[in-house]
Amino acid sequence: LALLAEARELTGLPVVTEVLDTQDLDEVSAVAAMLQVGSRNMHNTALLKAVGASGKPVLLKRGMSAMLEEYLYAAEYVLDAGAHDVVLCERGIRTFETATRFTLDLSVVPLLKERTWLPVLVDPSHATGRAELVPPMARAAVACGADGVMVEVHAHPDQAWCDGEQSLTPEIFFKTVGELRAVAQALGRSM
Amino acid sequence: LALLAEARELTGLPVVTEVLDTQDLDEVSAVAAMLQVGSRNMHNTALLKAVGASGKPVLLKRGMSAMLEEYLYAAEYVLDAGAHDVVLCERGIRTFETATRFTLDLSVVPLLKERTWLPVLVDPSHATGRAELVPPMARAAVACGADGVMVEVHAHPDQAWCDGEQSLTPEIFFKTVGELRAVAQALGRSM
Amino acid sequence: LALLAEARELTGLPVVTEVLDTQDLDEVSAVAAMLQVGSRNMHNTALLKAVGASGKPVLLKRGMSAMLEEYLYAAEYVLDAGAHDVVLCERGIRTFETATRFTLDLSVVPLLKERTWLPVLVDPSHATGRAELVPPMARAAVACGADGVMVEVHAHPDQAWCDGEQSLTPEIFFKTVGELRAVAQALGRSM
Amino acid sequence: LALLAEARELTGLPVVTEVLDTQDLDEVSAVAAMLQVGSRNMHNTALLKAVGASGKPVLLKRGMSAMLEEYLYAAEYVLDAGAHDVVLCERGIRTFETATRFTLDLSVVPLLKERTWLPVLVDPSHATGRAELVPPMARAAVACGADGVMVEVHAHPDQAWCDGEQSLTPEIFFKTVGELRAVAQALGRSM
Repeated sequence: LALLAEARELTGLPVVTEVLDTQDLDEVSAVAAMLQVGSRNMHNTALLKAVGASGKPVLLKRGMSAMLEEYLYAAEYVLDAGAHDVVLCERGIRTFETATRFTLDLSVVPLLKERTWLPVLVDPSHATGRAELVPPMARAAVACGADGVMVEVHAHPDQAWCDGEQSLTPEIFFKTVGELRAVAQALGRSM
Repeated sequence: LALLAEARELTGLPVVTEVLDTQDLDEVSAVAAMLQVGSRNMHNTALLKAVGASGKPVLLKRGMSAMLEEYLYAAEYVLDAGAHDVVLCERGIRTFETATRFTLDLSVVPLLKERTWLPVLVDPSHATGRAELVPPMARAAVACGADGVMVEVHAHPDQAWCDGEQSLTPEIFFKTVGELRAVAQALGRSM
Repeated sequence: LALLAEARELTGLPVVTEVLDTQDLDEVSAVAAMLQVGSRNMHNTALLKAVGASGKPVLLKRGMSAMLEEYLYAAEYVLDAGAHDVVLCERGIRTFETATRFTLDLSVVPLLKERTWLPVLVDPSHATGRAELVPPMARAAVACGADGVMVEVHAHPDQAWCDGEQSLTPEIFFKTVGELRAVAQALGRSM
Repeated sequence: LALLAEARELTGLPVVTEVLDTQDLDEVSAVAAMLQVGSRNMHNTALLKAVGASGKPVLLKRGMSAMLEEYLYAAEYVLDAGAHDVVLCERGIRTFETATRFTLDLSVVPLLKERTWLPVLVDPSHATGRAELVPPMARAAVACGADGVMVEVHAHPDQAWCDGEQSLTPEIFFKTVGELRAVAQALGRSM
């Protein structure tokens, strides 16, 4: 957290980071502009209520085995607790297919847009676990209506402490952003 | 088959239709310009060899529980038997999610493009089972690199004998084709 | 098939073997006392009808991604075509778990017994893919009501051409049969 | 919790109950002889560490989408934090099959027994969601090596506030206990 606070000061960027336990909420809230509830905590109702009551915007990732209904219920917990800004994020579900780390379930994007008024993101980095799949799946996410994507970027993916295999280099990241913009414009949306 | 032959005469369109058994191969080949092996027969090696040896182009759909490796092996059977033109098609896999009929696994599109030189289609109609999801998932398919999409269209979906729920009206179909073209162009491809 | 016929002569044992295609039906029927439809062909309706009409008893294995309803429909096809003796067999379904080759879904055993009058077998060898799991899962199968189990046995599993990893030695096989008998007797059934 | 404490006083029975959040730990520990971590919290590392450090025995249920490896890691967290008595419990995983609420994965029972020295329970009530499947699956659990089963019982299942559909009546419960004892004895174990 000290490192995150320092990064925030140095860059002026707002910080989104994950809260792993209700007891960490105050400490994390002091640094983060937005609180993330991770996939493994989507069913953690105590945490959902706590972040919902914190007054901070919340990024709620879909559980890796959560059905659409359950994901919507989880969002309800956060909203019910008082949150105004909740952002959803599809990040892959568990299936028999092992060619990718998880199976990115993009069909929920239009379903979530249809059934809620919440912004919907897609995280192709964690879903696929493979950097070369991130640009095409990010483009697919925008094409089916996602409001944004979350992707991992690292200046030197081969030296990353974790998740290097799924991280884009800055060059590929910027190229991908250009493609996403082009797809959005082609569909009459801005990005 | 007589109906398909008549439709072919009246419209001049080439016919793609499914072969369900090796014994039907000659009869179907007389009508069809391209033979389809359906999802439920992807593991049917006798059929794979027979269509591969027929001299006709083959549309090989992914089995609903086929891992990427198994799908590639199935394509190998068809190619080994002598087929020159084999087209692959992702059509949804079986997962725990019931909000859609199957889970459209678009991540295999770039993986199939990377590992084979075969054209890759996506069938969002059978995968999702819901007409309103077909246009967004068709756009996503093109955006992640699919060479084409297969969609069900019916002049009056509510009167269709089968698959009405997943069929597009002609109006929505033409609108979708325009969107697919726009996405392809935005990514520097033609369609 | 010649080998199977020879084995039948030498041992006097009846043969159960798999039919992979409708065109092989006559040849296989000449040797086999019972026709097996394998997991990968459970959705192959042409084959289901053909084996059903053959007059032979049929062993119908569950598809690796077949829901209970679909499995019952497949059995209906065989029965409708005229078969009198159809035996069902659970052999594992595809799930995210990779510690076993498939996930043995024993809960369908009492469900199949409740919804049909057909005998129900369990195949723990193909389901788990690991010899050391075969005896405990065979015992579990009998304990939840299976009418029998199918297990792979090989005099020298480490020299088997295929499926050696899931094959029992004769010693362990006979020990397991004793355990199955004990479980059945404990539950007031004979085996 | 007051009700649980009262129930404990009246009956003299030890209480096992679920902790849903690290902040509830002290309060729950005052009443419970054993702390349960539920399926939805199996990946909640903050909670795993806290219950592990509490000095109480811990009942750790498998996550509904947890691979065997992940389940073992979760148990490691609890043991590492200082727990001496950790009990594992398979309670069903998420698959495509909807005939049961979850798919009871009994194959992990012998795998868990092989890879740990921890007692392994099975919960057929939550796994199947159907009372009539509880006795056969409880018998199967004991037959494949489970050290015990957890089943829901209610004097009047049709009046239960929750989980009535999966609850046994006392009559069926006692009959089932007799069957479990018979299976265990037949396999040379006591229960």
